[in-house]
Amino acid sequence: MRILVTGAEGFLGRGLGAALPKTYPDAQRIVLTDRSFAAAGGTSGIEHLPGDLGDPDFLDRLIEPGFDLVFHLASIPGGLAERDQTLGHQVNLLAPLGLVEKLAKRQPGLRFVFASSIAVYGDLGQEIVTDTTACQPELTYGAHKRITEILLADMTRRGVLSAISLRFPGLVARPATESGHGSAFMSQIFHSIAAGEPYTCPVPAESTCWWMSNSAAVDALLHAAGATAAQSVIQPPVLHASVADVANAVARVTGQTAKVTFGKDATLQRIFGAMPRLDASTAISCGFQADVDLDALVKAALSGD
Amino acid sequence: MRILVTGAEGFLGRGLGAALPKTYPDAQRIVLTDRSFAAAGGTSGIEHLPGDLGDPDFLDRLIEPGFDLVFHLASIPGGLAERDQTLGHQVNLLAPLGLVEKLAKRQPGLRFVFASSIAVYGDLGQEIVTDTTACQPELTYGAHKRITEILLADMTRRGVLSAISLRFPGLVARPATESGHGSAFMSQIFHSIAAGEPYTCPVPAESTCWWMSNSAAVDALLHAAGATAAQSVIQPPVLHASVADVANAVARVTGQTAKVTFGKDATLQRIFGAMPRLDASTAISCGFQADVDLDALVKAALSGD
Repeated sequence: MRILVTGAEGFLGRGLGAALPKTYPDAQRIVLTDRSFAAAGGTSGIEHLPGDLGDPDFLDRLIEPGFDLVFHLASIPGGLAERDQTLGHQVNLLAPLGLVEKLAKRQPGLRFVFASSIAVYGDLGQEIVTDTTACQPELTYGAHKRITEILLADMTRRGVLSAISLRFPGLVARPATESGHGSAFMSQIFHSIAAGEPYTCPVPAESTCWWMSNSAAVDALLHAAGATAAQSVIQPPVLHASVADVANAVARVTGQTAKVTFGKDATLQRIFGAMPRLDASTAISCGFQADVDLDALVKAALSGD
Repeated sequence: MRILVTGAEGFLGRGLGAALPKTYPDAQRIVLTDRSFAAAGGTSGIEHLPGDLGDPDFLDRLIEPGFDLVFHLASIPGGLAERDQTLGHQVNLLAPLGLVEKLAKRQPGLRFVFASSIAVYGDLGQEIVTDTTACQPELTYGAHKRITEILLADMTRRGVLSAISLRFPGLVARPATESGHGSAFMSQIFHSIAAGEPYTCPVPAESTCWWMSNSAAVDALLHAAGATAAQSVIQPPVLHASVADVANAVARVTGQTAKVTFGKDATLQRIFGAMPRLDASTAISCGFQADVDLDALVKAALSGD
């Protein structure tokens, strides 16, 4: 098995990179790529190949040796993509288009796991979300993710790739140093309460989000690699809970007191904090799993994965 | 007013090109472009600029003088796009992407009317189609149309274009010489019965389609140019009728006897002949109109527009 991970230096990519050698102990190659890596080399049996997926020469060199499984995680966050449209167009739209076209020619039928986002939905209203919920993305980030999903579904139908797209919510708990995500409050609330520090949460206490730990997302990616789902787009199960409930869970698990002041940012609440319930029965029947409960979410979120 | 029409030599483009001078008698420029034109020049006040939208130099020359209104109709049909994926990728995906990027830079806020297709929906089941019906295109053609819709909606949200996408069904009655459309039977049934000739229709008599004459589609494009719809995607109203009902209407209007034998092509029926009812109330409230009834449809379809 020869495996490639793009965006390997991101939050999700670091978790996946750490898990791959355990999941595929006999892998022939595990190649991680990103624009740059904080630490060179490292884990034995893992190759770090820094470069820009938008550079056709680098892309050719990267995929030329051949892979059996590709995890495409590279993207810039929604807030940054909104501010820097040129960069977003390049990284979140043209890069995946170029990558999948070249992979399909180099290795027809290759397994391709794409980290999509719940940003594809746009404003969901209060109806329960199902497999037939329409996608009307409200940010360029979500539009680009949805476009990539559609391309991959069509390529999968034609058999030129075997792709699966996973729609992730904001994963927790992202390091406090990582910015550009409008959903940053979803992670900061974990770190602040665990550190016993006061936190001003921008959205009201009753805001409901979809919660998933980074390690649950890594498990979903690994499961997706071998899944035989009929759908090429999967909405993994998540925990549906209010910000207040999560704050209380963090305090309970860490033995701290939650010192949280809640704000009234209507825009952030509308985009990230007004999520209706989710019927993920299709994904669950295919073996995908959410964090077990809020306490498990907190433990996983604070484990440093 | 300076107006550009791409795909101007296609069925819909010819109809629009003929209607534009009447609708915009004071237009400063009306430019028609396509890969080639059967007849050079022609109508006074209309410029024919043949070229390939996929050629960046041609595209730059084409849009450099500036336009106030662009109708983007250029595409290759679904059947052809399915057989020639490279051409479909170029014409139905990369060409609109390149065109809108350049137009948005050249003239931010430009009005852009896009001829999309009901192929964006994929398999609709039997539920009535509304504004919130999910799109799961089943052919590459529909995938590319949906991708373009999503890009245009996002550009419109950001104000870099003022775009509107119209989802057209198979338009009737396309000349019998034009091939590549899986929905060709929807047009051939008009020509055969009108000519008193026998016709073997590939789908069963009870197959239900969405019907729209080419002239109704031209009216929809012209209305869209000035419409102030909140949505950037519009499903225009259509007539919902069985192939048998349409065959009877053609016979009634033309005074001929319908000599039609119906087949059992399950694939064609599933894609084009199993359309559920449509709730187009949003479009109707914005002033879009279907053909008045089946008799009006037949007259318009056979008028040679």
